[in-house]
Amino acid sequence: MTTDGTDLKLAETNHDIHELLRRRWSPRAFADREISGSTMSSLLEAARWAPSCFNEQPWSFVLAHRGDVVAFDRLLTCLAGVNQVWARRAAALMITVAKLAFDRNEKPNRHAFHDVGLAMENFSIQATAMGIAVHQMGGFDVARSKDVLGIPDGHEPVTAVAVGYPGDPETLDKKTRTSELAVRIRRPIAEFAFAGGWGRLL
Amino acid sequence: MTTDGTDLKLAETNHDIHELLRRRWSPRAFADREISGSTMSSLLEAARWAPSCFNEQPWSFVLAHRGDVVAFDRLLTCLAGVNQVWARRAAALMITVAKLAFDRNEKPNRHAFHDVGLAMENFSIQATAMGIAVHQMGGFDVARSKDVLGIPDGHEPVTAVAVGYPGDPETLDKKTRTSELAVRIRRPIAEFAFAGGWGRLL
Repeated sequence: MTTDGTDLKLAETNHDIHELLRRRWSPRAFADREISGSTMSSLLEAARWAPSCFNEQPWSFVLAHRGDVVAFDRLLTCLAGVNQVWARRAAALMITVAKLAFDRNEKPNRHAFHDVGLAMENFSIQATAMGIAVHQMGGFDVARSKDVLGIPDGHEPVTAVAVGYPGDPETLDKKTRTSELAVRIRRPIAEFAFAGGWGRLL
Repeated sequence: MTTDGTDLKLAETNHDIHELLRRRWSPRAFADREISGSTMSSLLEAARWAPSCFNEQPWSFVLAHRGDVVAFDRLLTCLAGVNQVWARRAAALMITVAKLAFDRNEKPNRHAFHDVGLAMENFSIQATAMGIAVHQMGGFDVARSKDVLGIPDGHEPVTAVAVGYPGDPETLDKKTRTSELAVRIRRPIAEFAFAGGWGRLL
């Protein structure tokens, strides 16, 4: 464990996976360091090349760097209080947005949220490759974010996101630090992957 | 361009992104080569370590290797005809599944599809790292897949997936080959990423 959070939580895998995927995790401690415009462009470029149903690319992102104080604070007020405590130190905040209907025929796109997820995982892995951490949150006020960010009808906020260089867990309050240092756990593969039919062991 | 499809469609990026993200794409031509059990375990392990809302990990996967003829054919019949044409040559087929309610409180999980997307992008990037291609499809019979695979209520099929080592586009029929060789396109960042509020240029 290093003091900047790097490799603090390297996944304890049962099967080999790529180093970038082992290293990706969602910290709460961020360093006091800005993300440059060109670095953010690379994160967004990674999201851009995700696959999507009919290549509709139903994702959008509204973001604010911490240096843009008015916009950053506006975004911060959309987060649940428990997330505001630590996310205020992130280098940037973001709301991810899904377009709910297809451009091609205006019918509902049942994969809109899913495809935002594909794009955001690309974003997160690119961030990991650049030494940056991404923490997505379900805990935010969807209606408020739609309102204060001017997100148009037909588009739905999906997650709030904190982005920044990882920081020292010692900077966190005690409760948040406990979460930060907790062992990472996941269900075993046998619980979620099946051979040929539901519940059949691989 | 090599004859096995490798690097056939390397993304033409405007900003630097990691090589794995540039190389990931969704081909239709697959080589006649099996995926080993241990390799498939690595792909599923990568999916396993994706983030999710409340760490609920709402993803499941029902898969069939091509060598498991009965299960593979059963899965193949769930695909749209236009996808069956090429996906029958994949080394494995899969249906991804979302659990619609939280385990913790049985309330609807609005991020269920999104989080399956996060897991599937991890799966796809791990595949890319191992020289394997993943092609997700929206074009499949959701109700039929739920029925023939025994997917329980409260769970919803999300996408169908073809997985395999990339093959020679010359093995495809003319129409499918045209899709395979088409230039990859994406919306520019300026169309989907905004500063502080919807529509404001970064």
